[in-house]
Amino acid sequence: MAGIMLNCDLGESFGTYRIGNDGAIIPLVDAVNIACGFHAGDPHTMNKTVKLAKKYQVNIGAHPGFQDLQGFGRRNIDILPEHAYDLVVYQLGALQGFVTIHNLRLAHVKPHGALYNMACKNRVLADAIAQAVNDVDPNLVLVGLAHSELINAGEEKGLQVANEVFADRTYQPDGSLTPRSEPDAVIHDTTQVIQQVEEMVTYGKVTTVNGEKIPIKADTICVHGDTEEALSLVQAIRKVIG
Amino acid sequence: MAGIMLNCDLGESFGTYRIGNDGAIIPLVDAVNIACGFHAGDPHTMNKTVKLAKKYQVNIGAHPGFQDLQGFGRRNIDILPEHAYDLVVYQLGALQGFVTIHNLRLAHVKPHGALYNMACKNRVLADAIAQAVNDVDPNLVLVGLAHSELINAGEEKGLQVANEVFADRTYQPDGSLTPRSEPDAVIHDTTQVIQQVEEMVTYGKVTTVNGEKIPIKADTICVHGDTEEALSLVQAIRKVIG
Amino acid sequence: MAGIMLNCDLGESFGTYRIGNDGAIIPLVDAVNIACGFHAGDPHTMNKTVKLAKKYQVNIGAHPGFQDLQGFGRRNIDILPEHAYDLVVYQLGALQGFVTIHNLRLAHVKPHGALYNMACKNRVLADAIAQAVNDVDPNLVLVGLAHSELINAGEEKGLQVANEVFADRTYQPDGSLTPRSEPDAVIHDTTQVIQQVEEMVTYGKVTTVNGEKIPIKADTICVHGDTEEALSLVQAIRKVIG
Amino acid sequence: MAGIMLNCDLGESFGTYRIGNDGAIIPLVDAVNIACGFHAGDPHTMNKTVKLAKKYQVNIGAHPGFQDLQGFGRRNIDILPEHAYDLVVYQLGALQGFVTIHNLRLAHVKPHGALYNMACKNRVLADAIAQAVNDVDPNLVLVGLAHSELINAGEEKGLQVANEVFADRTYQPDGSLTPRSEPDAVIHDTTQVIQQVEEMVTYGKVTTVNGEKIPIKADTICVHGDTEEALSLVQAIRKVIG
Repeated sequence: MAGIMLNCDLGESFGTYRIGNDGAIIPLVDAVNIACGFHAGDPHTMNKTVKLAKKYQVNIGAHPGFQDLQGFGRRNIDILPEHAYDLVVYQLGALQGFVTIHNLRLAHVKPHGALYNMACKNRVLADAIAQAVNDVDPNLVLVGLAHSELINAGEEKGLQVANEVFADRTYQPDGSLTPRSEPDAVIHDTTQVIQQVEEMVTYGKVTTVNGEKIPIKADTICVHGDTEEALSLVQAIRKVIG
Repeated sequence: MAGIMLNCDLGESFGTYRIGNDGAIIPLVDAVNIACGFHAGDPHTMNKTVKLAKKYQVNIGAHPGFQDLQGFGRRNIDILPEHAYDLVVYQLGALQGFVTIHNLRLAHVKPHGALYNMACKNRVLADAIAQAVNDVDPNLVLVGLAHSELINAGEEKGLQVANEVFADRTYQPDGSLTPRSEPDAVIHDTTQVIQQVEEMVTYGKVTTVNGEKIPIKADTICVHGDTEEALSLVQAIRKVIG
Repeated sequence: MAGIMLNCDLGESFGTYRIGNDGAIIPLVDAVNIACGFHAGDPHTMNKTVKLAKKYQVNIGAHPGFQDLQGFGRRNIDILPEHAYDLVVYQLGALQGFVTIHNLRLAHVKPHGALYNMACKNRVLADAIAQAVNDVDPNLVLVGLAHSELINAGEEKGLQVANEVFADRTYQPDGSLTPRSEPDAVIHDTTQVIQQVEEMVTYGKVTTVNGEKIPIKADTICVHGDTEEALSLVQAIRKVIG
Repeated sequence: MAGIMLNCDLGESFGTYRIGNDGAIIPLVDAVNIACGFHAGDPHTMNKTVKLAKKYQVNIGAHPGFQDLQGFGRRNIDILPEHAYDLVVYQLGALQGFVTIHNLRLAHVKPHGALYNMACKNRVLADAIAQAVNDVDPNLVLVGLAHSELINAGEEKGLQVANEVFADRTYQPDGSLTPRSEPDAVIHDTTQVIQQVEEMVTYGKVTTVNGEKIPIKADTICVHGDTEEALSLVQAIRKVIG
């Protein structure tokens, strides 16, 4: 069970706009993915968030996304692979600026939102992102949906990768997440969420929507702490994975 | 005369929008200041511009500015010093991303437009910028208007500084540039421009608008190459400084 | 006392980012100033906010600001008067689009944040804004700080104006607001706030920071409802003004 | 042949960035589509462009696009239909602001770039756009690719529509344009371009890539005038259509 990490997305405030509950969730996780000013975050927020991560000694990762603040980086944009490459280099560099001034090192990269979802299915896009990560710093860990094209691309480049699993999302027989447009995409029952985490962590399996058990590699679990309920859930998951 | 460098602002295109004559001017200069995506430039343009700089083996500097694409970073914005600090760290980091993937190093930093003008007069702002440069990389050279508060701030932080002079702008008795709002702010006569450069480079002096000669330190001269006339002028200046 | 209106700033959310407590404050006020997508707000938020204003039958005003989402329009930007003119025309037009589709009419215009503060002191800027309002629709009411240059500019153009007063801000002997940088800029004591409102509304006077009573014209009072305390205060002010 | 209009996209400059050859093309066309500040254009450019259109007495149309300046509105964005509706209302309103101050009326609406292409194929998106146009002003003409879903949507709402044809693009047997990714998408030979225009205008037919002649309704032809060659071509087309 050692080595399974909890990660969460942080630093998503922008200017006067506050989002998230960064101070409450950070003591419970091992790694944070910091927004880099494109889909969320701004230079001042990034600096504050890196300071917070330093205080709690968690791994710092970049969370690059589409330049779409209004859509919070969640809308698919038809981007050229070479532009995706540049987008990732830019955002990694910007975050490295803040990591550097606090004498820290960037540990990993996890694309955000639509960029993540698209890269997990589209190998050409995944290759562009993996190449960017590798060119900026080959020691960075690339985080992607377990068994996705993003993971495949990272492995082919020789990058260390982290297969990400979701505690409260249901899985399809092919290992993909049930799209959010489907009614059973999200697991709302806490007991079931914990059960799914336990199965993934202890047996390396997940029960898909049709009842089948498939193998799944779980290097890291994505959690959120926006509400009181979300925080309690993270505490419960924390107990399971140790 | 050795050591006086020609610098120019590059990489100011944005998306489909083209600006400048980067390919024509770069063979004539020693150093380029690359826009970092706030007042001008975008990730793709930055990558292309760094490649161009690599090809011509010129020094690469960051040209951070206000996040004001519509005003091209030329409008004063009432920014808090700590936000200016973060703005500079972010943009330096972003450009370092591109410099890194091409196995190069960033050589210098020159604030752009209104940020430059404000920092040359406002010591608190200048200190914030100099601190940001120092924290990101203490080996970076800070470029500012000769004898300005930006130069003073850089020197106090222990940074190497470069006093910048202008070939075609007139000077006030206090060493400041005549504001562009004044009729005699810009020298349009080529012979006079060359004469001013020769006086600055050879004697370390400049003749101010009231005829007085004052000492001026000229480490680097800013040039532009947007038009055929501008390019010829740079070639003439190049001959003077060797 | 008839005719004194309560106004509040609304529709300041942006994309996923929520700000304000629009639903709670709107039943208590007579007029709302809706953000137009530059310093805050976005097309979808504007549509929702106009619908809300329609439901509560309050006057709808435009709240145009600087294109500075990161600074929430609160940072002074050195804008040309003709650009300020265009900025206001654009934002008024955009909001009129939403007002039109709901068969309503725009009632007033109140510049936001730094644009408001700058225009209240700078007559050239004030003239540009008043001209824009007049050109778009001469029936619009221009709202500005009581007795300010913005009010003067509006009156000179022949616009109907509304002198705005602040319930919880202290006044200088010249009728200007004490700058927020001063320790006594904001009145925190509810009794004192109510007292100031009563004095302004009943006697047309305000007691300045040096104890002097000066005449003040109070056509409209700006209120906020972000917190429980703020809401109670608005309810108390509502009782005073009837 | 009467009634066939030449239209062109105008006002696409942004801040310091210049694009297009607006002054040269406008005397040759009947209608202009003005960028509304999202994919291109800004308030100041919009004002200048409306003035230019007034001077040449051409029909003024809105050219609303995605909020993607970096991609010039040419990248598909996965937008919700209700957000597309709001996007169009906002941009129409903003342009109406400038049209109003010059005592003119908006004549038509033509979505730009990716929004146009997506709406020509996607009926739900087309319906949202047509509804927005209708709600803002039911007298506006909706311009779309001849026989596309955008035209169908406009007709169903009861709007007047204009079928747009392209002089220098090849057509597929189903009446759609050959995608730009195909080698034969664009006709480079002037004689062939003129021939295609003549066939469309005189016989209401177009010869598709497989040699078949299909009926096509040509209410308006889109032209560009960025280069000397482009301008000559427009002059030649002007002669054909009268």
